[in-house]
Amino acid sequence: MSEGLRRSIATVCLSGTLDDKLTAAAAAGFEGIELFENDLVVAPWSAKEIRTRCADLGLSIDLYQPFRDFEAVPPERLRANLARAEQKFAVMADLGADTILVCSSVSGEAVDDDDLAAEQLAALAERAAAHGMRIAYEALAWGRHVSTWDHSWRIVERAGHPALGLCLDSFHVLSREVDPAGIAAITPGKVFFVQLADAPYLRMDVLQWSRHHRLFPGQGSFDLAGFVRLALAAGYDGPLSLEVFNDVFRQSDPARTAVDAMRSLIALEHRLAPVGRRLPGAPSLARHAFTEFGVDGHSGPQLREALRGLGFAHTGQHRTKPVELWEQQNCKIVLNSAVTRPQAAGTATISAFAIASEDPQRSLHRAEALLAPAHPNVRGPGETELAAIIAPDGTSVFVTRPDDGWRADFLPTGEATEPGAGLIGTDHLGLAQPFDNFDEAGLFYHSVLDLDHLADEEYAAPFGLMRSRNVANADRSVRLALTVALLRRGEWAPAVADPQHVAFTTADIVATAEAMTALGATMLPVPDNYYADLAARFALPESTVATLSRHGILYDRDTRGGELLHLYTPVFGGRVFFEIVERRGGYDRFGEANAPVRMAAQRHRRLTDQ
Amino acid sequence: MSEGLRRSIATVCLSGTLDDKLTAAAAAGFEGIELFENDLVVAPWSAKEIRTRCADLGLSIDLYQPFRDFEAVPPERLRANLARAEQKFAVMADLGADTILVCSSVSGEAVDDDDLAAEQLAALAERAAAHGMRIAYEALAWGRHVSTWDHSWRIVERAGHPALGLCLDSFHVLSREVDPAGIAAITPGKVFFVQLADAPYLRMDVLQWSRHHRLFPGQGSFDLAGFVRLALAAGYDGPLSLEVFNDVFRQSDPARTAVDAMRSLIALEHRLAPVGRRLPGAPSLARHAFTEFGVDGHSGPQLREALRGLGFAHTGQHRTKPVELWEQQNCKIVLNSAVTRPQAAGTATISAFAIASEDPQRSLHRAEALLAPAHPNVRGPGETELAAIIAPDGTSVFVTRPDDGWRADFLPTGEATEPGAGLIGTDHLGLAQPFDNFDEAGLFYHSVLDLDHLADEEYAAPFGLMRSRNVANADRSVRLALTVALLRRGEWAPAVADPQHVAFTTADIVATAEAMTALGATMLPVPDNYYADLAARFALPESTVATLSRHGILYDRDTRGGELLHLYTPVFGGRVFFEIVERRGGYDRFGEANAPVRMAAQRHRRLTDQ
Repeated sequence: MSEGLRRSIATVCLSGTLDDKLTAAAAAGFEGIELFENDLVVAPWSAKEIRTRCADLGLSIDLYQPFRDFEAVPPERLRANLARAEQKFAVMADLGADTILVCSSVSGEAVDDDDLAAEQLAALAERAAAHGMRIAYEALAWGRHVSTWDHSWRIVERAGHPALGLCLDSFHVLSREVDPAGIAAITPGKVFFVQLADAPYLRMDVLQWSRHHRLFPGQGSFDLAGFVRLALAAGYDGPLSLEVFNDVFRQSDPARTAVDAMRSLIALEHRLAPVGRRLPGAPSLARHAFTEFGVDGHSGPQLREALRGLGFAHTGQHRTKPVELWEQQNCKIVLNSAVTRPQAAGTATISAFAIASEDPQRSLHRAEALLAPAHPNVRGPGETELAAIIAPDGTSVFVTRPDDGWRADFLPTGEATEPGAGLIGTDHLGLAQPFDNFDEAGLFYHSVLDLDHLADEEYAAPFGLMRSRNVANADRSVRLALTVALLRRGEWAPAVADPQHVAFTTADIVATAEAMTALGATMLPVPDNYYADLAARFALPESTVATLSRHGILYDRDTRGGELLHLYTPVFGGRVFFEIVERRGGYDRFGEANAPVRMAAQRHRRLTDQ
Repeated sequence: MSEGLRRSIATVCLSGTLDDKLTAAAAAGFEGIELFENDLVVAPWSAKEIRTRCADLGLSIDLYQPFRDFEAVPPERLRANLARAEQKFAVMADLGADTILVCSSVSGEAVDDDDLAAEQLAALAERAAAHGMRIAYEALAWGRHVSTWDHSWRIVERAGHPALGLCLDSFHVLSREVDPAGIAAITPGKVFFVQLADAPYLRMDVLQWSRHHRLFPGQGSFDLAGFVRLALAAGYDGPLSLEVFNDVFRQSDPARTAVDAMRSLIALEHRLAPVGRRLPGAPSLARHAFTEFGVDGHSGPQLREALRGLGFAHTGQHRTKPVELWEQQNCKIVLNSAVTRPQAAGTATISAFAIASEDPQRSLHRAEALLAPAHPNVRGPGETELAAIIAPDGTSVFVTRPDDGWRADFLPTGEATEPGAGLIGTDHLGLAQPFDNFDEAGLFYHSVLDLDHLADEEYAAPFGLMRSRNVANADRSVRLALTVALLRRGEWAPAVADPQHVAFTTADIVATAEAMTALGATMLPVPDNYYADLAARFALPESTVATLSRHGILYDRDTRGGELLHLYTPVFGGRVFFEIVERRGGYDRFGEANAPVRMAAQRHRRLTDQ
């Protein structure tokens, strides 16, 4: 166990043909697979050829599945089922697989008789044992008579056959209300297989929930570390195997999905310490250090004008590159006219952002251990070393020292940063994620930077349903708002595709708004109807609403009385905008309720600009 | 009523800003809208300006909604709720709307007291009446105390206020088990508003079902004609208003969605005759007349070779265009090298197909009445008139006479069609649909050609989940299999995007397979694993499986013993393939169980071809 448990993945987690799946699993470092019957059936290779292919790739076949509707049936059906099983044992012998999953029956032929189920499963185990194989019996959450892990365990115990044990699937266990604590007391050696899947808590039919909405560990709401500890307490030392049915993973690039899956297991094992393999601990993060926009001759002037309006000064010019530093107190923006990452002509994009860490080197080691690709560090003589990690959407994430030593790479222009407009620092970044990589991105920031996953929000926006997943560190000095359309965008998408934004903090949003007005800032007009509705929703004093309305300030209040006052700019450079936020009374969300107002206003603004 | 009921649509059915929505609704011919509060709040226009805009577009505002959590509350909450209502009445006065929807409370503050609910709703109605307005009370299917239409009616009856009536939403009524028949007995004049939504029957939480999976009438499983008849029997003569919450419609082109919505209402009204406006009756259809492929110098030779292998002869050459006719008994394929519709270079596409109708002219009139765009008829001197309708995916649908008079446009080449390979006619076309237009396509063929909507199938394919919706005429001489990926395809989509195929019928698939082998046809290899599994699944005789395997014939059996034997070709011209089917014993499906085998084999074949 010093090396940790074996890492395995079910072929059903990955898109493609069996060839695509095996290649992806091996490349991500998995040691074994669960082979799904459907993947075998459609494969052009014989079972023996699959065994060879897996061996060449360093993959064992840890489980063959599923075998359905076996137990507690009339005698004639039992005979047919045993004959079916013999065919599967022959396939498994060719595959070199010794464990088959038998899930609890959903058949109308099955009767509610534990003795009969135990007797028939023992008969099956006896046949399996003759082939040197074993049966892992699993309670499906929607099984006809057996739907909980403790019930499946009572049957396995009653059967008392050495070749019959349990398969514990975290989804089937944790989606039911039966306490999993008793798992720790299962007879050592009787847990034959452990399957892991996370999931969000959803109010829906459990079969549909299971078949469409599973996620990799750390992407949902289940306590999987607790679950695995229970299995370990019962003496389990087989593979930790991911079995995730997910509509998006079923159709996205399996090479990426496999890496995402492996990252989820590495992060989970870290939480199992001392049993699991350890990661470098996550250093604490101090704040957003800077945000870099890639710009060109079209988008650059738009961003410069916008920053002036927000009270920024152009304080520095990079020693060797066409890169400008713009500052206002602890808000730092870098405009880079020489980004190497491709972006649409005329568009501005957040090409990188930097987070100050108490130990940048350790942050990078942790990222590397979590399979985060590293950005090649390009620096001229005498320049600061700035290594970065590449986020799932391609953005570079620099990890800097808290002393902002990187500023030495910029020659001062002499421009004064005073008086500014009262912006203090960066509150959060808003980053729309590619559809296929949304859950991957959440896990990436959660595991690599140790950011907590705050509650998800879903809302209806003018151009479709949106989901946001917010992550932040414990003291909230670093926050990211990740967003995605609930359905992948099609051709009719008049909203800005994949918008990005930087939100700055102010201690007095009205004063800031007045200062910006004086500086000639272009802010987003907010409709009068919004304020009429606001007054009705929150019973705000008329004078407060008048002030908000005068400056186009939006408002939200949480259930504990925390308040958010915030302002938006229009979209600049085709894709980016800025937000000013004042948080009061511990408000910890991102004002998602107002996002549809912003989107409609930004669309309206773009139409009238045309 | 001779002119039919007014046609209205809720703004929530359509994507975009209020401007986008109003423009789309008016262009599709709607006479009124239901205005959702959210659409008002984010609009840059005042309520009075919205009224003017609607009037300019010929739209009335038939309903303002929603007003939530009003009734059966403590006195202090009632005061606040009445104050909230006064604000909404003021907005409605500016909008020129006289009816507001109040949905049954979901609030924890509401008590289960019908007398109190009735008393408070009467108080609200009294306030509304003072403004010349009225209250339409609706039972939400997930209302806290009131969740069925009959319960809401008891409360309205008890309240006994002339300005209080019912809103009947087909979703809330038909998603519950309470019999709707009693609706006919509601006091005339007390149904204030009727909202229509269809939906598939889904086993899921009713709120999620309602908010994400509603469809336009005719696209789901509800008996909406029956529902409307009940409302009419109760004397209802207000608008028929569509209220459809659908994730896809929320983000697709509102101009198209509005036309789809209007088509659904026109088709529904036809079924309400004699009250509704009538459509030209649908003539009976005889068969698939021909299928036309658009080809070029790269894909044309591939298709010609494939057709030769299938036993087709090049029998005719068009008199004036670079168009070839290929025939075998009643199977007719046209290769058109001069299609005007854009298609990818090197690719073959089904550019058109023809259905023989007993009355082509009436078929076209019906299509026109259902807002199906007509294809401009281009013909040379002496050529047959061939008018067509454009299907949602852009394919031209020709409607021809049963005598195949169109063949006169082709000069015979003299090539003999004997002996062929035993193909008799066209069984069906397989047409992958654009993601945004799948439900639209189903309704289009159902309403325009009067094809029945057979059961939907969903299955896991190697590259993602798939759905197929099959439509056919009563005697099954015309069948279409419409397919779509359950999630819109992203960049990793190694399967053929939007594949299309023609399936031909044979009376003896083994003889046909032997004839094709003799002709040198390229058929799709089917893995041995498939046949091993088949033997286990269906207990087929070993000799039968050996025969199927020798020819790569796939097999399916339905629950009544009907059988399908079918064969596939690889993909030609980048996008299209052919299928040969033999149906036995009334098999009425399309062999979807075998589609994953086909897809994996087609992908494997393409990889080995590279």
